[in-house]
Amino acid sequence: MRKAFFIGVGSELINFKPNQYSVLFSQKLKGIGVELNGEITAKDDFKNIENSINFATKNSDIIIITGGLGPTFDDLTRQVLSKILKTPLVYSKKIESFLKKRYRLKELVKNFKNQCLVLKDALLIENYHGTAFGEIVKKDKKIYIILPGPRREWEPMWKKVTKYIKQNIKLEKIYFKRIKIADLKEVEIENKISDIIERYKNNINITILAGPNICELYIESRDKKLYDKVFKEIKDRIKDNIYGYDDENLEGIVSKILKKRKITISTAESCTCGLLSTKLTDMAASSVYYIGGINAYSNFIKEKILKVNKKIIEHYGAVSEECAQEMAKNIKKIFETDYSLSITGIAGPGGGSKEKPVGLVYFGISTPKKTYTEKRIFKGERKFIRQCATNTSLWLLLKHINKEEK
Amino acid sequence: MRKAFFIGVGSELINFKPNQYSVLFSQKLKGIGVELNGEITAKDDFKNIENSINFATKNSDIIIITGGLGPTFDDLTRQVLSKILKTPLVYSKKIESFLKKRYRLKELVKNFKNQCLVLKDALLIENYHGTAFGEIVKKDKKIYIILPGPRREWEPMWKKVTKYIKQNIKLEKIYFKRIKIADLKEVEIENKISDIIERYKNNINITILAGPNICELYIESRDKKLYDKVFKEIKDRIKDNIYGYDDENLEGIVSKILKKRKITISTAESCTCGLLSTKLTDMAASSVYYIGGINAYSNFIKEKILKVNKKIIEHYGAVSEECAQEMAKNIKKIFETDYSLSITGIAGPGGGSKEKPVGLVYFGISTPKKTYTEKRIFKGERKFIRQCATNTSLWLLLKHINKEEK
Repeated sequence: MRKAFFIGVGSELINFKPNQYSVLFSQKLKGIGVELNGEITAKDDFKNIENSINFATKNSDIIIITGGLGPTFDDLTRQVLSKILKTPLVYSKKIESFLKKRYRLKELVKNFKNQCLVLKDALLIENYHGTAFGEIVKKDKKIYIILPGPRREWEPMWKKVTKYIKQNIKLEKIYFKRIKIADLKEVEIENKISDIIERYKNNINITILAGPNICELYIESRDKKLYDKVFKEIKDRIKDNIYGYDDENLEGIVSKILKKRKITISTAESCTCGLLSTKLTDMAASSVYYIGGINAYSNFIKEKILKVNKKIIEHYGAVSEECAQEMAKNIKKIFETDYSLSITGIAGPGGGSKEKPVGLVYFGISTPKKTYTEKRIFKGERKFIRQCATNTSLWLLLKHINKEEK
Repeated sequence: MRKAFFIGVGSELINFKPNQYSVLFSQKLKGIGVELNGEITAKDDFKNIENSINFATKNSDIIIITGGLGPTFDDLTRQVLSKILKTPLVYSKKIESFLKKRYRLKELVKNFKNQCLVLKDALLIENYHGTAFGEIVKKDKKIYIILPGPRREWEPMWKKVTKYIKQNIKLEKIYFKRIKIADLKEVEIENKISDIIERYKNNINITILAGPNICELYIESRDKKLYDKVFKEIKDRIKDNIYGYDDENLEGIVSKILKKRKITISTAESCTCGLLSTKLTDMAASSVYYIGGINAYSNFIKEKILKVNKKIIEHYGAVSEECAQEMAKNIKKIFETDYSLSITGIAGPGGGSKEKPVGLVYFGISTPKKTYTEKRIFKGERKFIRQCATNTSLWLLLKHINKEEK
């Protein structure tokens, strides 16, 4: 299988904002049958960049470099590659006229002129979001791809990159999928499919990644038939907890189904205190379904605004099935929505007891027919518990919509 | 200045979860006068790890390796280092008794026994959150530090790591600080201090990093006197917008001041829809000051629950100074708090017009004395605009508290 190596150039990637592209490139490359084998972050220093490119060249067929393409003195990627490949930098009239047109200039200033210097015979890729063109050069059977640092600049170039790779080296096809799973622990998934993992461990790569009460199950194989068979087997075992595939996320799936079925929704949150409503409105045009919510952090608000019966809180406590039930039922009524969600729990680190430990969360889901409650106990730190609770609430909503709106 | 190189070992760092430690290590190392010079991510493959360590050794004095220390066949860090340093792995009775005691075992199972194999003569560092000890070895004037992958495991070991480095190589002191700034654009900061940057550009490193209506200004120098002078000069120019230093964040600062001054607060959010209330309750014990909030995403809720006068919305629109004013005033009254915050704006991508573009946001801040409003126009994508609005609201609160509660 063809191997690629990724180099992120830029001192800021070491000092301030870590390089996050390796996973992105890894997924994208896998789609065309190339394996990303490693990653280096190099500071803006000639020797550093040179050493890194030489190291990458030794260890792979395709070398992807992002960054260091700006017009100033500390942008050195092209210069270093020119030295390594013994290929001169030449002035591109094509880029000159592109930049003149785009920025409506009669003459280019010095900084812009620097951006017209490119590796001789490189395939140039237009940049519609910045001044640095992408460049691809093949030398000694290795492909060098240089791209600007910002994702919004390089991502639109990616199509041309993959086209070039496909045309210029022989590739092997890889079959893979990411199955998105909710409300099952990593170990529960493992137990459900341990015999499958055992049976195929030498021929298929199966990895489980745990998140906040969601997991991702990754399957990869070069054998199409085997891949199809194992994918189907695994899917059958965990189908009740699958919410999507690949790049899909829980809030996106929920948003889509709410729009499609023209359902309106409201929220009453205690321990998550707005995280659920934030997620529900992360997507554009969410005002179609999301009407509003109350972050009832104190019992005073639970009683005064959410109209939870004082006796329920006194008798069962604010973190109880009964309180979650009332919160969901009442918010739906007050906000006049089709469905509603409530969350009340103990996010910690304080506030836990033997009977009600940190991580205990009750959920309410009120549908047009009935109000349901659920209970979970999550383990982890405050932020993680709040994320677990939010994901679980979205998942429970999805389940109930799918059940009721058949 | 001493140089370090960081290697993150683990296939998952390439395929699923990018390595995020380089910035952390960079900051921590700078504190003791060591510069992190580069970073490699290596898959769990003997040759890969070996090549990476050899590359790092050539380019630095200190090599930090995280991960690949588990007890299974694909955990290879110790084995590779043993080969490179020509130092055998030996069985540590010390680790054996530590693990026996910690896990209350009479005999160690095989996986645990693997964790007792360490580099001969290594300084061992206890792990209280996992089974892999940290190890430090010095060879040919280079220091090799191996640490377990998870941050909660290696971070408690860091004190011993720095102690070892300080005792074993000569270090130069570096002076640096991160100044946290709100509500000034990157270019506005540049303009305020451009003459300072120009004057000291050869002797002092000044970098500005832009976030969602917050910025970070980084100053670094090896000359204490110069550093103190420049820090003071810069601080004087931007003091009205500084909210903190180094690891401090806006919500943490706000939380502290609310607790200290015993102020209670409520929120009324439209476009941010819970993001502000989430931030206000990110910290432990936030129930002391945060009472609750309304996510009034629809005008129906603004009118029905927040009691915003229908005429205001009809006349000025929901995204208006007048509406922000009413929202803040009313939520404070209904929720009976000392202060309150409101946000109403257009997060996009849709909903904008020439008069009211995407990114336009109005803020309300109601104090015990008066209700103030502010207006901002942010540029960027939906999520970024919502973050800008949230940070700005927190910042405005901070400003008004500091003004009123002197």
